[in-house]
Amino acid sequence: MAQHPHEALDPQALDRLFREARTHNELGGEVSDDTIRALYELLKWGPTSANMSPARFVFVKSPEAKALLEPALDEGNRAKTMAAPVTVIIGHDEDFHEKLPYLFPHVDARSWFEGPREGRSAAAFRNGTLQGAYLILAARALGLDTGPMSGFNNAMVDETFFKDTTVKSNFLVNLGHGNPAALFPRSPRLPFEEAARIA
Amino acid sequence: MAQHPHEALDPQALDRLFREARTHNELGGEVSDDTIRALYELLKWGPTSANMSPARFVFVKSPEAKALLEPALDEGNRAKTMAAPVTVIIGHDEDFHEKLPYLFPHVDARSWFEGPREGRSAAAFRNGTLQGAYLILAARALGLDTGPMSGFNNAMVDETFFKDTTVKSNFLVNLGHGNPAALFPRSPRLPFEEAARIA
Repeated sequence: MAQHPHEALDPQALDRLFREARTHNELGGEVSDDTIRALYELLKWGPTSANMSPARFVFVKSPEAKALLEPALDEGNRAKTMAAPVTVIIGHDEDFHEKLPYLFPHVDARSWFEGPREGRSAAAFRNGTLQGAYLILAARALGLDTGPMSGFNNAMVDETFFKDTTVKSNFLVNLGHGNPAALFPRSPRLPFEEAARIA
Repeated sequence: MAQHPHEALDPQALDRLFREARTHNELGGEVSDDTIRALYELLKWGPTSANMSPARFVFVKSPEAKALLEPALDEGNRAKTMAAPVTVIIGHDEDFHEKLPYLFPHVDARSWFEGPREGRSAAAFRNGTLQGAYLILAARALGLDTGPMSGFNNAMVDETFFKDTTVKSNFLVNLGHGNPAALFPRSPRLPFEEAARIA
């Protein structure tokens, strides 16, 4: 039944993923197309409900694509995003269910989500967001630094990058190599008792 | 500006977090209260918008609490959840903004989210979901196996575990040590070209 427990990752790995990792405001260096593909090949394995994998990713890298993104950014996010090697638009396909015969082949999962789009939009948002978190942690695992943000005009991004599709933008993540000197002091987290309980 | 890139984690760590990790249907073993607290102390560092940290976690462990959860579970999730050492209810506080003076002290972030609850519910859901993903990956990083699921009655869970609060349930995660023999064959993931593009 229960297996011998796995070992925890070493402390340096836990630092890199969680304890020492920071949201970076100044990201530089290079992020190659090979690195972007390696990042997808890791994050894709993260779990989603019925393996629905609704997230859709645009890796905005060229100056032309960055210029298309720029007017949608909140003022406070503009300079750092334009300077980052890559900005990922994390969206989710609200008609994700069309791919379930491939993604979840052993039952007719598509039928669970047919009908008006409102009936599946929360599942698309929840699971696309999970995949966005997997992207952040997979990037850190590959040695990249990240700068996730929600401060942008979703409708403008949808019009520019997802026109005539059923994909909606969710949030953005800058990728690159961070400058620790540009970090703000770290903000506190809630103590266990304020965020959790054991029942 | 750009720093020397960090090293990627070693291949075994990438396997544990992503490539070899599976959603387990049969979880056993022990998950101590110390492990639960260590899990929170890792996942709490994951990034959220304005550090809002809206997720609230109930670690359902005692037979009494498991019995309260049981009637809310979908039939297909019942036996495996009742057998798991711990089931985490991941919820989010829709009035998370009340803690922003502590969590994001350098500006008046609370004022950004004041007003009717509908104006902050998407932020609570998005960022609480991110924290749920951090919990899954932090658990794997600590050597635990996980079984996340959405198949339950949210209203019943809210009534039982979050009554008279502003917390709403999001999804559940079983925790323990998995039995590889009870795994289903792994479902495929979308190739890069179907889920992503470089612009």
